[in-house]
Amino acid sequence: MKKKLSDKNMASEMTLRPLGVVKSELKQPSLVAGSGDLEQGKSDESAREEVKKIRDLVSEIVIDKSLEGILDGIEDFSHILVLYWPHKLAEEKRSLIKVHPMGRKDLPLVGIFATCSPARPNPVLVTAVRLLERRDNVLKVQGLEAIDGSPVIDLKPYIPHYYLAQDIRLSDWMMRIMREIGENKRI
Amino acid sequence: MKKKLSDKNMASEMTLRPLGVVKSELKQPSLVAGSGDLEQGKSDESAREEVKKIRDLVSEIVIDKSLEGILDGIEDFSHILVLYWPHKLAEEKRSLIKVHPMGRKDLPLVGIFATCSPARPNPVLVTAVRLLERRDNVLKVQGLEAIDGSPVIDLKPYIPHYYLAQDIRLSDWMMRIMREIGENKRI
Repeated sequence: MKKKLSDKNMASEMTLRPLGVVKSELKQPSLVAGSGDLEQGKSDESAREEVKKIRDLVSEIVIDKSLEGILDGIEDFSHILVLYWPHKLAEEKRSLIKVHPMGRKDLPLVGIFATCSPARPNPVLVTAVRLLERRDNVLKVQGLEAIDGSPVIDLKPYIPHYYLAQDIRLSDWMMRIMREIGENKRI
Repeated sequence: MKKKLSDKNMASEMTLRPLGVVKSELKQPSLVAGSGDLEQGKSDESAREEVKKIRDLVSEIVIDKSLEGILDGIEDFSHILVLYWPHKLAEEKRSLIKVHPMGRKDLPLVGIFATCSPARPNPVLVTAVRLLERRDNVLKVQGLEAIDGSPVIDLKPYIPHYYLAQDIRLSDWMMRIMREIGENKRI
């Protein structure tokens, strides 16, 4: 059941339109941390393998031709932030409040805002990816977990000023997931 | 004039609802890189001072009480990603395609997706901020450029896996802005 917002002063609904689409060999939502549905049945081992595969995966972002010029200059950045919509997420999953991350009962029950779950009230997913190439309205990027057909909401150049955090501390359960998937970025 | 999207296969509009609100001493959009309107008249010096102030600025994020529990566990992370809406942005600014960053004619004319301009087709703004404190439905954060009253779209824990890029290269004009504001994060 969808709850009503209690604050009378809150702004009204906001509308997004798809500006492009992801072309990827990933056809189904990955079942790993931050993107799986919450009833996943895959083994931890197979989930780990998928993460590793996605890290090197090359996908395309095709921007609508009506927006010609909007990418000009993006090729001068090594990385971009991709905002996209998990279009296969069922509408009712947007009313979840607390979950076991990745559907794993061995991890604590936490609020959706403490997770990377795609099932969230406003499912705008964000990933920093490497920009490999631009050809007109098509970008080739590396490391994007978005599945084929995901609507693209926005692209931004990756600017340390806004997106790079330092001296990062993660929760114990998230540290555990990161160890499991062999994440080796400095934190 | 709003252009029609040409791809017939694209998904339809997506709807967001405000989940909370920013309480900040910033009452007007800042005029510095990435957040100013595009006819700013402030001196570079005064813009620089504003950036420095925002870096240390403490704001509050008040999440709607109907979502009780959604923040549980977020306090175990040192940083979060805040997605918010620039509610003072005029609707017509969403159809801009190319701009001079920050309205500065000494910087090249580039596509909106190569800038951090809040004036973009889907104005979902993203910032990584330090989480200082949580009290029930209120978070205290440091370094958020959102102005007072900005609707909050989403909060996520800051996970290096998704948000930390390494070996970053910026465009020449962005490097220039970063030098001007004294940005000293490693890149």
